[in-house]
Amino acid sequence: KKIYNIVVLPGDGIGPEVVEQAVRVLEVISAASTDFQLNLSSHDFGGCAIDATGVPLPDATLNACQEADAILMGSVGGPRWGFGEVRPEQGLLKLRKSLGLYANIRPASFASDSLLALSPLKSHIAQDVNIIVVRELIGGLYYGKRKEQGVEPDVDIAWDNMIYGVEEVKRITRVAGQIALASDPPLEIHSVDKANVLASSRLWRKVVTETLNSEFPQLKLDHHLVDTAAMLIVSNPKRLNGVVLTENMFGDILSDEMSVIPGSLGLLPSASLAGAPSWSRSRNSKSTLGLYEPIHGSAPDIAGQGIANPIGTILSAAMLLRYSLSLEREARAVETAVRTVLDDKEQGGHELRSKDLGGESSTKDVGDHVLEVL
Amino acid sequence: KKIYNIVVLPGDGIGPEVVEQAVRVLEVISAASTDFQLNLSSHDFGGCAIDATGVPLPDATLNACQEADAILMGSVGGPRWGFGEVRPEQGLLKLRKSLGLYANIRPASFASDSLLALSPLKSHIAQDVNIIVVRELIGGLYYGKRKEQGVEPDVDIAWDNMIYGVEEVKRITRVAGQIALASDPPLEIHSVDKANVLASSRLWRKVVTETLNSEFPQLKLDHHLVDTAAMLIVSNPKRLNGVVLTENMFGDILSDEMSVIPGSLGLLPSASLAGAPSWSRSRNSKSTLGLYEPIHGSAPDIAGQGIANPIGTILSAAMLLRYSLSLEREARAVETAVRTVLDDKEQGGHELRSKDLGGESSTKDVGDHVLEVL
Ligand SMILES: CC(C)[C@H](C(=O)O)[C@@H](O)C(=O)O
Ligand SMILES: CC(C)[C@H](C(=O)O)[C@@H](O)C(=O)O
Repeated sequence: KKIYNIVVLPGDGIGPEVVEQAVRVLEVISAASTDFQLNLSSHDFGGCAIDATGVPLPDATLNACQEADAILMGSVGGPRWGFGEVRPEQGLLKLRKSLGLYANIRPASFASDSLLALSPLKSHIAQDVNIIVVRELIGGLYYGKRKEQGVEPDVDIAWDNMIYGVEEVKRITRVAGQIALASDPPLEIHSVDKANVLASSRLWRKVVTETLNSEFPQLKLDHHLVDTAAMLIVSNPKRLNGVVLTENMFGDILSDEMSVIPGSLGLLPSASLAGAPSWSRSRNSKSTLGLYEPIHGSAPDIAGQGIANPIGTILSAAMLLRYSLSLEREARAVETAVRTVLDDKEQGGHELRSKDLGGESSTKDVGDHVLEVL
Repeated sequence: KKIYNIVVLPGDGIGPEVVEQAVRVLEVISAASTDFQLNLSSHDFGGCAIDATGVPLPDATLNACQEADAILMGSVGGPRWGFGEVRPEQGLLKLRKSLGLYANIRPASFASDSLLALSPLKSHIAQDVNIIVVRELIGGLYYGKRKEQGVEPDVDIAWDNMIYGVEEVKRITRVAGQIALASDPPLEIHSVDKANVLASSRLWRKVVTETLNSEFPQLKLDHHLVDTAAMLIVSNPKRLNGVVLTENMFGDILSDEMSVIPGSLGLLPSASLAGAPSWSRSRNSKSTLGLYEPIHGSAPDIAGQGIANPIGTILSAAMLLRYSLSLEREARAVETAVRTVLDDKEQGGHELRSKDLGGESSTKDVGDHVLEVL
């Protein structure tokens, strides 16, 4: 039996509650398999780690993550640590960089058509939106040099540097290409930049174009300015169906903008990879390390009530199976189970709705139903 | 009679067509007044200036703009000049900087409730959205130092610097404060940044807070991260009703995102000011120089057909009257006329619809009706 080590970082707020349900799903998948076994172990991370150890990312946690095949995270942060010198987000930024998680992957589509009514967009505009954002995660403004206000000699200015190198853009472009190729027919790639103003965007556009033309000549590629893309996501998001490939800061903004189209943040998963998806690599190479987390925050206002929607985390576990462990069949099974739980009764589904979807089902109810279908 | 010199820059594509109607409006306003006279003169700018002189912003045009009380622009750019070394947008970026146009003001609201059906957002979400974006326009990533790919010694990297100084943030904050105070009750201010990551954003947040607390203590202020703001604009834009105050790059993205809520880009005006709005300054100071333009582009695909919507440009002319010339009464008259032309017949309006609004009215029809109501 192949053994996979999964580090679990429940984190703060509703993190532990939603992670608990995803862990149950992974345990069932593991128990059902004769080929592999998932070994799960939890570690402190975020605000709770600050409380316990003084830092958001203790060395023991970082070491465990470095040794792992994949990491499942809940969410970090909350008003308790919001304004201190040591903040939970710093742990997340450090973890991304230390593990080299350069490829952030965020799908935005409807987990079930029965959720269309919850979208803020008119149904004919929201329907059939199917976008995967591939965001560069450890470059650009987030990790460039910066200067804080108050530092000599120019105490009255502050700056941040948006910097990209050719290799950095190449590797994220390849991940986008591999994801696009995994669909049949292959997905179109929409690269987003601000090449009419920024030097880093001109490099971005050039390297993306060259890399795709030479290594993925079968893929369709177009380019959008970030302001135009921000408009299209509201006015005609289907225009961007396929893979939206962009740098760190633009990806932060656009993926969040996009994430409210499917009705509830509680539904959406994400992956952050340290390399190409496992299935695109040679059969015997080590699994690609990845961090998987729902896109919603720690929601301290509803923490502890057992009403948070665990679906974003359960779908993150599905991404973990797919992207880090190459377990496509198991990933699909989880996704199909989630769809069944959400679908209307007339479509043969359970029509289960947690609070964020206008219903009454508890976090555990949703987990129970997903397990039942599985 | 007070004389105001207005420079008109029709530009490219549909620019000349839409500007023509706004010019008619300004001429009628001028003819009707016994107090002031508007002297209008046209100059080359953008692609047409590249064709005529080799550069997008000829010295003669820049000089005329520097001497003017205000500038009315159409739009610049188009595929003909899109990929050359000399691009029309460079003229715009140079004009903004040379004239010190640091305050970009973009209202997003429904010119008439009869247009709600055209919004991509569900009506209950779009209704009553009333936001004025105040964007810093000559700082940050747009004008910081940059390094292009290919330049020695590190030929494989490129970067742009996002830099802000205390005084730059103070002056744009004051403009936001003055605009907020001009409403009764005063508008709330929503400052947008990425202070959890960027040093320039931490400076931004600190200076905005201090400036408003000390100079505009009566105004309500809150702060949003740019990713959260991008979500709110889709999911619950009314939450940002009031003034959204932000830096150059974030303002570019968020104001475009917001601009599709009211149904057609053709409806929205903008102002770019070189100082505080004229009405907030002492009675005898010179008018505040400003550049006024619709937010839509040059739309080369429909240029020359006489079907472009001139309302964005006509409302830009209204902003010109208000912000540069302190002619509030005249500005309101133009805005009321536009509303009447757009309103449904049952509301007592003309229900006029150009192509972008699903109708058949020509550019000139719309101008005719606005003049008729005026
Ligand atoms: C918490 C924050 C630093 C982070 C980011 O901006 O990357 C978050 O918004 C995200 O998108 O994961
Ligand atoms: C043309 C371009 C340089 C410009 C900008 O990014 O500022 C435009 O998008 C705008 O918002 O006026």
